[in-house]
Amino acid sequence: MVIQNHDSIRAVQWQDGVVRLLDQRCLPAKETYLNLSSVKDVAEAIRDMVVRGAPAIGIAAAYGVVLAIMDRCSANQDHWRDELESDLTLLEAARPTAINLSWAIRQMRDLIQGANDNPLEKALSLAQQIHQQDLQDNHLMGKLGAEYLSPQSGVLTHCNTGSLATGGYGTALGVIRSAYTAGKIQQVYADETRPWLQGSRLTAWELMQDKIPVTLIADSAAASLMQSGKIQWVIVGADRITANGDVANKIGTYSLAVNARYHGVKMMVVAPTSTVDMSCPTGQQIPIEQRHPSEILCINGQKIGPEGIDAWNPSFDVTPAELVDVIVTEQGVIESPNSDRLMALMKNTTSN
Amino acid sequence: MVIQNHDSIRAVQWQDGVVRLLDQRCLPAKETYLNLSSVKDVAEAIRDMVVRGAPAIGIAAAYGVVLAIMDRCSANQDHWRDELESDLTLLEAARPTAINLSWAIRQMRDLIQGANDNPLEKALSLAQQIHQQDLQDNHLMGKLGAEYLSPQSGVLTHCNTGSLATGGYGTALGVIRSAYTAGKIQQVYADETRPWLQGSRLTAWELMQDKIPVTLIADSAAASLMQSGKIQWVIVGADRITANGDVANKIGTYSLAVNARYHGVKMMVVAPTSTVDMSCPTGQQIPIEQRHPSEILCINGQKIGPEGIDAWNPSFDVTPAELVDVIVTEQGVIESPNSDRLMALMKNTTSN
Repeated sequence: MVIQNHDSIRAVQWQDGVVRLLDQRCLPAKETYLNLSSVKDVAEAIRDMVVRGAPAIGIAAAYGVVLAIMDRCSANQDHWRDELESDLTLLEAARPTAINLSWAIRQMRDLIQGANDNPLEKALSLAQQIHQQDLQDNHLMGKLGAEYLSPQSGVLTHCNTGSLATGGYGTALGVIRSAYTAGKIQQVYADETRPWLQGSRLTAWELMQDKIPVTLIADSAAASLMQSGKIQWVIVGADRITANGDVANKIGTYSLAVNARYHGVKMMVVAPTSTVDMSCPTGQQIPIEQRHPSEILCINGQKIGPEGIDAWNPSFDVTPAELVDVIVTEQGVIESPNSDRLMALMKNTTSN
Repeated sequence: MVIQNHDSIRAVQWQDGVVRLLDQRCLPAKETYLNLSSVKDVAEAIRDMVVRGAPAIGIAAAYGVVLAIMDRCSANQDHWRDELESDLTLLEAARPTAINLSWAIRQMRDLIQGANDNPLEKALSLAQQIHQQDLQDNHLMGKLGAEYLSPQSGVLTHCNTGSLATGGYGTALGVIRSAYTAGKIQQVYADETRPWLQGSRLTAWELMQDKIPVTLIADSAAASLMQSGKIQWVIVGADRITANGDVANKIGTYSLAVNARYHGVKMMVVAPTSTVDMSCPTGQQIPIEQRHPSEILCINGQKIGPEGIDAWNPSFDVTPAELVDVIVTEQGVIESPNSDRLMALMKNTTSN
């Protein structure tokens, strides 16, 4: 079953009363799992990027709340609500910008506040439901996206959007898994994705584990790859999609979109509707996180640039809707996205 | 004088009978010079990228031939011509794509074949002339290219085309030096240039040494930089220019050209006419050097990709002439290059 789906990795698991996280800081050199039995440990793991990827962070946090309930409700029968609230606040602060984190904690808080007695059983059930729903959505998006690919396709992906970033299966990598399983993909190319190298550290590792043929390239070789005719699709995830269909995603996505259009390669964005921000009219209103120059100037602690050099290090870029051919969500697919089509899609969802 | 020209570095020097090379593999951490006294050492230094950049390779090879003559003509008076020829072949094979290498060796070979006796003195004189001519050409190209820039310009460059890549001053960086000296440049942006990081290791270092304001970016951030309106010109060098004006240059150049055209940013290629290969009709006939995947998978000996992963690592890409706005050579400037304009330019030169 696992082999048929080319889907063997789980970055977040609930096992016998502990949260089991694959330590992504050690990949690809070591496959280490951490068993966390306290909410503090989970918050620390999120903050220190043991787990990353917005959906995976949300799921880990939901399980973290379950650990908090196990601790607080047995230790102190009277004040557990107050104490739990301090745990939720701790978790929320771990990565304040990740929208899925606060979304997952909000759901857990609502359940706790509505409970008359020890909410452990219901909370575990809700956390598992959040996890299962994410997995199910990813499989559905995988199926919807894969339908666009012709047999023998070559695809290029950027950053990591796979089992490591989600409850499992992945968003853009979910489409790639589904398409490969359906015999439609000949070769996957992965951008190494500077400066954090999620492509080489995570995506290449994940695809190798699941026996999907992957070739790594320097980000700047993507245009030449398109020129060679070896790829038909660029398939990426999204960090935010605005009301008009503009897409914020990992730095480098926009360059791929411009090059894809120039070469007649198609551009697919895969993201759950929880990523769509209808309150944000266009990409120009998205605040772009500027990260420290050291991410460009050091690799694993080794300096690669001269002392005192300045670097510009935006973490994301914005691809205008007109360069996107298809947006795939769990609620359906939009071709040539624009405001009307986004609005029609989001009318059917409850997540915004 | 040096400060006024923002030009203080020399990567290749002839000093007291040895070839003195700045070991560019050690930059920016260490400024180490290697003194090479045999043609084998020079060939190895070219192959191992102690010296890189098409013109610098050509100059180093010319001095390498001088070393070969010093060795062969003293050791074996009878067979020096045959033995020298094997040395020339060794040098020629060190790097396949850059045309300057074979161009410089052809000049040295012509001199050797025309000589009746020990050609050492004339050969050294020719090698030094090739070196001086390169420097002089770079200053001229700097002046010609700088004329295209308006005051307060932002420019982006790729790889290293500076004093480190040439006999001194640089091609694309020569234009940047001249334009900065003329008060026309507000800010230089340098692509880090994966996988070899010539941008962060070499260009950023070189510009800092010469007090020209430089900001480093990840290669994939270039499109976003253009979107922001901060640059008006992309200025790059070339490893080979074909008869129709196509340009082979460091991998990533083509992506910049596509993005520049999309954003209305101008694309300037700066290269001496020795880079123009009139025997090569279009970019499709240029052999593109494929380098080892380890360049993408390791940084300073540290693995960053999973064991056994495949990588595609072309060292160069080809930008079609239609995406180039200006080619600057020491024989003059061509706007919107095509076959007719290249032919008209090359009629005036003796180098091809």
